[in-house]
Amino acid sequence: MITIVVGTNRKNSVSRQVAEYYQSILETKGMDSQIVDLVDLPGDFTTTALYSENGNNPVFNDMREKVQSSDKLVFIVPEYNGSFPGVLKAFIDGLKYPEGLRDKKSALIGVSSGVQGGVLAMAHLTDIFNYLGMHVLALKPKLAGIERNFSEGKVTNDLYNQLLNEQAEKLIGF
Amino acid sequence: MITIVVGTNRKNSVSRQVAEYYQSILETKGMDSQIVDLVDLPGDFTTTALYSENGNNPVFNDMREKVQSSDKLVFIVPEYNGSFPGVLKAFIDGLKYPEGLRDKKSALIGVSSGVQGGVLAMAHLTDIFNYLGMHVLALKPKLAGIERNFSEGKVTNDLYNQLLNEQAEKLIGF
Amino acid sequence: MITIVVGTNRKNSVSRQVAEYYQSILETKGMDSQIVDLVDLPGDFTTTALYSENGNNPVFNDMREKVQSSDKLVFIVPEYNGSFPGVLKAFIDGLKYPEGLRDKKSALIGVSSGVQGGVLAMAHLTDIFNYLGMHVLALKPKLAGIERNFSEGKVTNDLYNQLLNEQAEKLIGF
Amino acid sequence: MITIVVGTNRKNSVSRQVAEYYQSILETKGMDSQIVDLVDLPGDFTTTALYSENGNNPVFNDMREKVQSSDKLVFIVPEYNGSFPGVLKAFIDGLKYPEGLRDKKSALIGVSSGVQGGVLAMAHLTDIFNYLGMHVLALKPKLAGIERNFSEGKVTNDLYNQLLNEQAEKLIGF
Repeated sequence: MITIVVGTNRKNSVSRQVAEYYQSILETKGMDSQIVDLVDLPGDFTTTALYSENGNNPVFNDMREKVQSSDKLVFIVPEYNGSFPGVLKAFIDGLKYPEGLRDKKSALIGVSSGVQGGVLAMAHLTDIFNYLGMHVLALKPKLAGIERNFSEGKVTNDLYNQLLNEQAEKLIGF
Repeated sequence: MITIVVGTNRKNSVSRQVAEYYQSILETKGMDSQIVDLVDLPGDFTTTALYSENGNNPVFNDMREKVQSSDKLVFIVPEYNGSFPGVLKAFIDGLKYPEGLRDKKSALIGVSSGVQGGVLAMAHLTDIFNYLGMHVLALKPKLAGIERNFSEGKVTNDLYNQLLNEQAEKLIGF
Repeated sequence: MITIVVGTNRKNSVSRQVAEYYQSILETKGMDSQIVDLVDLPGDFTTTALYSENGNNPVFNDMREKVQSSDKLVFIVPEYNGSFPGVLKAFIDGLKYPEGLRDKKSALIGVSSGVQGGVLAMAHLTDIFNYLGMHVLALKPKLAGIERNFSEGKVTNDLYNQLLNEQAEKLIGF
Repeated sequence: MITIVVGTNRKNSVSRQVAEYYQSILETKGMDSQIVDLVDLPGDFTTTALYSENGNNPVFNDMREKVQSSDKLVFIVPEYNGSFPGVLKAFIDGLKYPEGLRDKKSALIGVSSGVQGGVLAMAHLTDIFNYLGMHVLALKPKLAGIERNFSEGKVTNDLYNQLLNEQAEKLIGF
């Protein structure tokens, strides 16, 4: 079972749609997955689930438990202000420490309207995940210009599809 | 008027104390400053002040206005999970775009219990601030082992004090 | 006098042409500049100008002196293997330490055949330059797909030209 | 067979000694290894082995072949000017592209006199290696203050030894 994290709490995000598409790719390769969408975070989680309140918010705990109990994770990472969404890092800040992500294996996918495809977002996240002991697959597809390359629930760019499929296979074998 | 941002919403943070100490340094150099402490963020700001709700939370707006109306900013950045607090990036995600931080000048100070002193946190933040058009002073003191080097409201490490004073002077002249 | 560094020792590099174009931009704004092209590095500089040999290679010394005596620097940074050319960093490793780049002001321009425009190269360089005490202008144009956007000695992409001009003006006023 | 790369061309480097120590750790775990020391690079490799001369320098080719033919690599990375040595990146720039490092697995060890332990050097290298398709183990020991923690060919710091052994085991199983 692979857990796919939608890395934003924005409603109706394209990242959510990319997550569902990634789920279909994994399915064609015989791999089950579940989605954890940060849109489901409690509205007040930054004061009820972090620091001295770590572990005290049941809804947050349920979400983090899905992440913490998976050996392999996929992160769909939209680019906000040249990096990842702050909410994604705040979610990470609420995980169990230090065992939360340790020794897990992960795959990152960057998503952007603009031309960067989340390259810095994924570089920053790789630093953080490595610090926490989670391995990151080298191949990190950058889905730049997502609006032009995604339609009716599917990535329409051939190169993107090739990279996503290649990454999914590597993650299964990682 | 310089605005000093306490980069975490943790209660009674050491970063807050460092901010007040930095304020006293600026004062000795004849420079007024005000503190914006992220502990004052509305508990639900990640759902009431971001994305389609950007600009709709009056308390958040008041905090961001103090930041947006300053030409020079100081960020006290505690190291959480190998980078900056997610809440700090979520606050940045709620600023006016693109004019929020553009063409401002900033100084970063890293704070950690461990040995890193927030070096990666500040590298990541520099990427983000530069992306948003805000200049970052090259000198970024890393206050590692803060518990051993801070007492009764004051930094007690001579090298740290030298660097903080040097940085404050550079910021005033930046 | 601004010094423009061509950040590769590749012969007949497009970065050299971009440097000359940047020089013409500075000229239209009334600013003199000179070019230091790493293609002129002595072939054996990594053994005759670094570490215990620092300062012992006259040709290298002449090149680094042009850099060290300028208050403002421009770096044309081609993207090699996802970052800057190793030769550029090796040149930096041969500068006087610690005063080589300290307190100078710099502007970075990324150049690539591919879609990234040197974004990671410039992020890495910013870390290094800041470590060495040199300020880096926030605006760092990314000249992706340079072959399609450069012809007969001129950048032909309007957005690129706007950003280069804006950057040059900011550097002059930095 | 694991190949350990000494990431500098400095003569008699402490990184070389750390490489030999790492080799002894691997040996105790039953794993053979060989060392590629960049001190053996031809003095003129930046003009005789890169770009249009890629593949034309027999000594360079022999060194890169040892790297390219290994499935697992260890990099001993001294911190120079806040990042890795330029010579290491120039060596990487001379590898076969794109197959040089693709799909290999690697472990990074940072070495510094100062307090950073090469943290930014390894973050930058991770970006580059991932770009080139090489996986990087999450655990990256930072051997700060190496002079105080290395004596008679051995790391004398217990935490460092614990981390190096843990990393070596993870690399063998990676």
